[in-house]
Amino acid sequence: MRMQIGTFLARRLTEAGIRHLFGVPGDFNLSFLEQIREANGIEFVGNCNELNAAYASDGYARTSGIAALVTTFGVGDLGAIGGIAGAYAENVPVVHITGTPPLHAVNSRALVHHTLVDGDYDNIGRCMSEFTVAQARITPANAVSEIDRVLRACWLERRPVHLQLPSDVTHVTVEVPDSPLVLADPASDPEQLSNAAQRIVEALATAHFPAIVVDADAMRFGVTDIVQKLAEKCSIPCASLAPAKSALDETSKHYVGTYAGAASAESVRSIVENADCLIGVGLRFTDTSSALFSQHINPETFIDLRRHDLSIGTTQMPGVTLRDVLARVLDEAQPVVRERATQAPTVASDALPAGSSDAPLTHAMLWPRIRRFLKPGDVVLGEAGTSHASLSSMKLPAGATYIAQPIWGAIGYTLPALFGSLVGASSRRHLLFIGDGSFQLTAQELSSILRRDLKPVIFLLNNAGYTIERLILGEHSAYNDVANWRYAGLPHAFDRRERALSLVVETVADLEAALNRAESAEHLVFIELKLPMMDAPESLKKFADIFADFDYGECGPRNPPKVTALKTSPSGRHVAGETA
Amino acid sequence: MRMQIGTFLARRLTEAGIRHLFGVPGDFNLSFLEQIREANGIEFVGNCNELNAAYASDGYARTSGIAALVTTFGVGDLGAIGGIAGAYAENVPVVHITGTPPLHAVNSRALVHHTLVDGDYDNIGRCMSEFTVAQARITPANAVSEIDRVLRACWLERRPVHLQLPSDVTHVTVEVPDSPLVLADPASDPEQLSNAAQRIVEALATAHFPAIVVDADAMRFGVTDIVQKLAEKCSIPCASLAPAKSALDETSKHYVGTYAGAASAESVRSIVENADCLIGVGLRFTDTSSALFSQHINPETFIDLRRHDLSIGTTQMPGVTLRDVLARVLDEAQPVVRERATQAPTVASDALPAGSSDAPLTHAMLWPRIRRFLKPGDVVLGEAGTSHASLSSMKLPAGATYIAQPIWGAIGYTLPALFGSLVGASSRRHLLFIGDGSFQLTAQELSSILRRDLKPVIFLLNNAGYTIERLILGEHSAYNDVANWRYAGLPHAFDRRERALSLVVETVADLEAALNRAESAEHLVFIELKLPMMDAPESLKKFADIFADFDYGECGPRNPPKVTALKTSPSGRHVAGETA
Repeated sequence: MRMQIGTFLARRLTEAGIRHLFGVPGDFNLSFLEQIREANGIEFVGNCNELNAAYASDGYARTSGIAALVTTFGVGDLGAIGGIAGAYAENVPVVHITGTPPLHAVNSRALVHHTLVDGDYDNIGRCMSEFTVAQARITPANAVSEIDRVLRACWLERRPVHLQLPSDVTHVTVEVPDSPLVLADPASDPEQLSNAAQRIVEALATAHFPAIVVDADAMRFGVTDIVQKLAEKCSIPCASLAPAKSALDETSKHYVGTYAGAASAESVRSIVENADCLIGVGLRFTDTSSALFSQHINPETFIDLRRHDLSIGTTQMPGVTLRDVLARVLDEAQPVVRERATQAPTVASDALPAGSSDAPLTHAMLWPRIRRFLKPGDVVLGEAGTSHASLSSMKLPAGATYIAQPIWGAIGYTLPALFGSLVGASSRRHLLFIGDGSFQLTAQELSSILRRDLKPVIFLLNNAGYTIERLILGEHSAYNDVANWRYAGLPHAFDRRERALSLVVETVADLEAALNRAESAEHLVFIELKLPMMDAPESLKKFADIFADFDYGECGPRNPPKVTALKTSPSGRHVAGETA
Repeated sequence: MRMQIGTFLARRLTEAGIRHLFGVPGDFNLSFLEQIREANGIEFVGNCNELNAAYASDGYARTSGIAALVTTFGVGDLGAIGGIAGAYAENVPVVHITGTPPLHAVNSRALVHHTLVDGDYDNIGRCMSEFTVAQARITPANAVSEIDRVLRACWLERRPVHLQLPSDVTHVTVEVPDSPLVLADPASDPEQLSNAAQRIVEALATAHFPAIVVDADAMRFGVTDIVQKLAEKCSIPCASLAPAKSALDETSKHYVGTYAGAASAESVRSIVENADCLIGVGLRFTDTSSALFSQHINPETFIDLRRHDLSIGTTQMPGVTLRDVLARVLDEAQPVVRERATQAPTVASDALPAGSSDAPLTHAMLWPRIRRFLKPGDVVLGEAGTSHASLSSMKLPAGATYIAQPIWGAIGYTLPALFGSLVGASSRRHLLFIGDGSFQLTAQELSSILRRDLKPVIFLLNNAGYTIERLILGEHSAYNDVANWRYAGLPHAFDRRERALSLVVETVADLEAALNRAESAEHLVFIELKLPMMDAPESLKKFADIFADFDYGECGPRNPPKVTALKTSPSGRHVAGETA
């Protein structure tokens, strides 16, 4: 059949399961937006700016599977690129579509706005290619093949891709296939698959202390159910790395907690590091997920399952996918009821510390109460800093999804990500915990949430600046201060309909009252929590210290300057520790 | 002398004339920020996010000459990169300093946060190099030579540069020169300079209808005074391209208005296109400054002066600078009093149209009144859209500076640019005109302005969405809508001290009252102007039409679909206009 190129792209997006297209309009993408407006099954959802659109897409993909955004050339692309890079780092499939200047302008190197007016139309694409796994500039000649190739790569790698759609190409009709786009993971090589599964089944059968550790790819490649069934069938304790928070049911008796190298709870560390058969699912040991590379994994008993390949000890096998091998192992493994009791999960206690109800709120009082506020199925977002640090060690209810950005770690990510996730999964309750400093980066996206009358509960932790940074360096330095906004006044300023419930919490009693009101609220709830400037979970303080040493080193500003003997050089100049 | 590397960099920045360092703190730049805190003559000024920091730096450089910002690696750099690209496109010198992971992590390709955790530490630098004229990763070995090289390049090209400063390098001491950094333009080749000046002087002497057209480089390279003196001495009419708005004294009798090819006022077009000796100063004919390349310049009588070279007709001369040649020509040119009267500037009338004072405000009523509100020496910022279109054709008072981003054209630029310019030039009155859609991109930077108690007058044109885009495509399409914020409530939400004066204007009488109150206000004034959705200056409507044709072409959505005869191909498939 014949179809306009933009209409075909819209169709392909819906076939990929994308029901919402985030972004910001601009003259080079308006003709495509007209086609989206007329398309069935997909809706344009405007953001306040492009970085927020990229974060919203990332959040959407985390609960809806895959996402897309549209920006305009240059100004829009470079606005979004940080969020695209974040999706790359965190393995999130996002389709970034750019409306570019018309093909005739590109081909003639015309000096148009939103470029450097030097005739170079490739510079933006070169930048995007650093943070995407496939790219194309769509033309009438290549549209059909390139759109499908790029969308498939997005799904295959669960990472962003970039499509440039010139403004004069959208309405050109081309012959397109009738058949829908099917996004599928590649099939495994049958022989290697059998071989791998057999070896893993044998390793499990002979192991006395097996364990499984999952990372984010367990979620991205949809194998968390299989992992849980395998853990159940063979009584295998499971841990997660920080980026896989909520991948596994944290209330399961097989779930032991977060593994983070030397920063793990001792019970978790012992299970993982002493395992005589350790199955890793998509593991990436990064500085933050391993407490600066302090993991201890025995390579001889390590089965490293990756998205499209694996290794068992020193044996490498390409062409075996995560899902296939886990499914086969689940099928073939012998059920085991291990005598050794699995460890009780070691997570923060949710018993409320004793304290007067008019005492100022502190982290120690806050989080146990929040734990009781959570419900099965909640989507919980934890912004970098005290929120993520606290939520990381909290046992989440069954079916909860936790969203954070622990690898890329861009502050401000979670508010637009909340918006994105809500757009795709509005029937789930969403809770956001975000500090004041982070909130300021992307604050305007609160208005998008209000505009669609979405109903999250937003906790704004006002601790007078960048507390995580004060813990690292500059506790009293002004650069760690931020303006003290009237945060709870923002819903009023951002939405004339005045539907939101805005509350300010200073004491434990205030918190109790606010949570009770939030339970029955029918619209967005915004709760500003006043917290002491340097109050933070102990884990974060420890983390900050080791990171400061890593970042600034021996002669850095945290170490008192050493007194160096000054000697006078022959020329009379003072020279410290060198010969003139 | 020996000095810590970060302290030396701070010293070099102050020697370059930079008194404020914009940016956002992050763990990889905190050690440098400690050094900035201790340095004399430079102050860190925090922004709400990195894009805003880049725009603020750009605005600062436009009124203070050169600017700097600091971000953290990856997340921060990519947040800022759009603003850096804008500064490149607009020829604005901005020093972008990134605090990177420690050198030991870079060298060992460690998998740290704010990277893609793939060991690649060069990807961010590759992106930045697309939009900067010099780059370096500072090490103890190269610090002294690289810092100076990169800062010199920033000034030489009046364009951004990028310095990566690893977090563990800041406090390492190295031997540095005692002598200050001197930023200077290169000297011209004496022989070519004499030669060029002589030919230009002769051309002017024999010309009957000479003219000068200036572009933004006239401001960036500080030659506007020389141009004005030359115009005076030789009675030469002068025009500006849109990016050079306010470069010349628009009240001068020699100033004729803006040249924009076919979109020029007829009097301006005639003077420029019929000149028998046309001197161009840094001209770049872009789509927006030339009404889609409709300029008509006679190459035989065109003297094209560029920053570091020039051409006279077909003769090319490298090694002669803009300033040197203009200064020499001014010296040597014979004074001329031309008989032909120069044209009166054709700019929008500032006579207030008659109308009832309770009539709803329209653009036709607004701008003449604004013209009377302006004062000599004001800094006026015009955001892309109806504001820039209206201000472009307004005669500005003497000594006024106009700031816009007509080439890069990123919406949202002006609010942070206002902040930046105010920080460096707080004694000048600043006025910002910005539409609601644009404002939402970077709105939080209003809080930075309030935090420092800066006192601009901000006009928020609330016309219910992206009006410039509605004029191009999708007048009634929802993608051009934005949330209707309670804009005048934002100063209250962003600053607990409640100093700002916030007003909402719906009628001509409201406007009058608001401007009167603004005249005597002691703090920031925020005026929300309610304007009809499709109301816009005629010039913008015309512009929108020709751009829509350029962008979407023959088969685009603005042209009704043509009825194509369908014929049945031999295979029975319907084929339109092709042979199967």
